[in-house]
Amino acid sequence: MIVLAAILLIVLLASVPYLVAIAFAQAPAGDASADASPIFGVTIPTGYKQWELIAPAEEAAPLNELRAVVGNQTAVDAYQAGKLPFPDGTILVKRAWEKKQSPEFASATIPGAATTVQVMVKDSRKYAATGGWGFGRFINGKPVDEAQHRTCFACHEARAKSYDYVFTRLAL
Amino acid sequence: MIVLAAILLIVLLASVPYLVAIAFAQAPAGDASADASPIFGVTIPTGYKQWELIAPAEEAAPLNELRAVVGNQTAVDAYQAGKLPFPDGTILVKRAWEKKQSPEFASATIPGAATTVQVMVKDSRKYAATGGWGFGRFINGKPVDEAQHRTCFACHEARAKSYDYVFTRLAL
Repeated sequence: MIVLAAILLIVLLASVPYLVAIAFAQAPAGDASADASPIFGVTIPTGYKQWELIAPAEEAAPLNELRAVVGNQTAVDAYQAGKLPFPDGTILVKRAWEKKQSPEFASATIPGAATTVQVMVKDSRKYAATGGWGFGRFINGKPVDEAQHRTCFACHEARAKSYDYVFTRLAL
Repeated sequence: MIVLAAILLIVLLASVPYLVAIAFAQAPAGDASADASPIFGVTIPTGYKQWELIAPAEEAAPLNELRAVVGNQTAVDAYQAGKLPFPDGTILVKRAWEKKQSPEFASATIPGAATTVQVMVKDSRKYAATGGWGFGRFINGKPVDEAQHRTCFACHEARAKSYDYVFTRLAL
């Protein structure tokens, strides 16, 4: 009986790595613990703050934001090669902050509080109905509602179709 | 005679790695082939475009620029730990671009042509006279003149002394 219990315990412990791997594999493009966006199931990718800068931007009123788009290595490689459409596996993350006047330099505007994190994931099969892109818009790490997510592709399609539905160009 | 020539050739070839090492060692903090700034001898560091974003910024008229400060791993670690003064080996690079209205989104301002690259290198002994920082300001990869470099520390000292002479804070 003790031997049987020991064998069961060993089998159970040996399967832990597989169970963990399965759990992570089910979370698309990122952190398994993060919430996924409605419609697309996109999550905030792990480690995106370490990714390479694609370009900064500034958004006028009413949003009044400073922004920075970063990309994973697949994205950076595609930008540098001028490769369109972006290959599957491309992930772009747009970070955004309220604008704040620098207390030390009056002419400088610097980031205030973070506002949204917006993610685009390329998977030409999974997201075939939306140009190959899945979208996620997050506030404080949580996805916004489904209605907002329905607006993502419509705008990207109307304005940025010629660049594979992506607004941001690589800042050289 | 041939033996002597052969020996000389071998000695010469054997010394090549050392000569190369000396040449690289004399270029502070970066690419040995790049021009170094006057006064400080700071160069544009290799691979800085891959470095992590510290913060974007916007500069009003007359400069009218979008900017992004990136830092090497020593810089990022210090920012995340809230460690002041920044440790020796810290390098910060400020990239800057002309502002340009997005052709696809009227309210968005995006990077136009690159303007300057500005570098700060921390070496508390070498740059003891300027708060431990060496400065470099580059246009098209070439350092600007000595007169401009004389203004760097004066401004950082007058306005940012309380944060180890650094203006930029980590955007969270």
